[in-house]
Amino acid sequence: MAPVGPRSGDAIFANMERVNAELFTLTYGATVRQLLTDLEEVDEVNKQLDQMGYNIGIRLVDEFLAKSNVSRCVDFKETAEVIAKVGFKMFLGVTASVTNWDADGTCCSIVLEDNPLVDFVELPDTCQGLYYCNILSGVIRGALEMVSNTSSFAQPSIPSFLWDVSLKTEVTWIRDVLRGDDAYELQVKLVKQVPEEYPYKDDE
Amino acid sequence: MAPVGPRSGDAIFANMERVNAELFTLTYGATVRQLLTDLEEVDEVNKQLDQMGYNIGIRLVDEFLAKSNVSRCVDFKETAEVIAKVGFKMFLGVTASVTNWDADGTCCSIVLEDNPLVDFVELPDTCQGLYYCNILSGVIRGALEMVSNTSSFAQPSIPSFLWDVSLKTEVTWIRDVLRGDDAYELQVKLVKQVPEEYPYKDDE
Repeated sequence: MAPVGPRSGDAIFANMERVNAELFTLTYGATVRQLLTDLEEVDEVNKQLDQMGYNIGIRLVDEFLAKSNVSRCVDFKETAEVIAKVGFKMFLGVTASVTNWDADGTCCSIVLEDNPLVDFVELPDTCQGLYYCNILSGVIRGALEMVSNTSSFAQPSIPSFLWDVSLKTEVTWIRDVLRGDDAYELQVKLVKQVPEEYPYKDDE
Repeated sequence: MAPVGPRSGDAIFANMERVNAELFTLTYGATVRQLLTDLEEVDEVNKQLDQMGYNIGIRLVDEFLAKSNVSRCVDFKETAEVIAKVGFKMFLGVTASVTNWDADGTCCSIVLEDNPLVDFVELPDTCQGLYYCNILSGVIRGALEMVSNTSSFAQPSIPSFLWDVSLKTEVTWIRDVLRGDDAYELQVKLVKQVPEEYPYKDDE
């Protein structure tokens, strides 16, 4: 459907530095457990996982641009496709699909076919309000906010080289296998496109 | 020097499920930052990172045994070599070497040639007491404590199938590049070998 740039997620993933997936899974699990101990409130843990993901997402964009050779996306639809098809493959080694677009193309779902974060995980009854994988929603939100570097969304009256766009989104879990659903589904809703003006001043 | 079992760390690493190293690095960095925020005291963060690593180490042993086909080690020396040469390669994709053995073979250093945990990391002045990679010392300590499954250390008077050994160790940083040293060096000191009796009782 959407163009995916000159390199597929598979090809990029095969040539990147990687670490063992189980080590990553266990490290993430230890992090969630530690947050539950330190913060006590499940809602607070959800919030912090999202914030951690956000901080990761705004950094991962650099790696994504450097390795993927993805060219500028023309709209939110194409951006969502690139994240699902290239981004998830490139970083987690899994495939994701984009579905459930609304009529005006500002809201969609990203559905994960596999999720390495949750291997060996079962939530105890005391953690039923936990969004265990909430780091992922933060990563997507952070990456989209920095997407200005890859995007040249149409600004009809302004020469395109003068403007880039930062995508402010809300990312929420619709389905979660750990909560008894049949898949992992994240809803990504475009809230605002914030144009950024070039050139930046020297002192910024 | 020591036998490394039928499969090298390289060969195993090439065939395991993996995730992008930068995602792992950034996730670990976000975890350390979060702990610094929540716990405030650097010493407490060091302690929690070590504990997280310990919890990971006792779990990683299963993956190690399942994938490496490493046979039982005959002593602490061989065990240390296997961790450095197979374990580090298998999980982090890096090579480590074992040096500085003491005379009675109960203390050595593991030196990392590369350390994916610290890419992009600089410690601010407020964190000078932080052992940023302390999760690694915990992983080694935890893995060695569970090493009983791979070890049949000599118990002269007892048939070897009746006994296995759990290795209690102290793992401390000797050199740390983030603190201005020229390498990452962990000292692993064998404190106690705890025999474990078989068969376990049914209700254990």
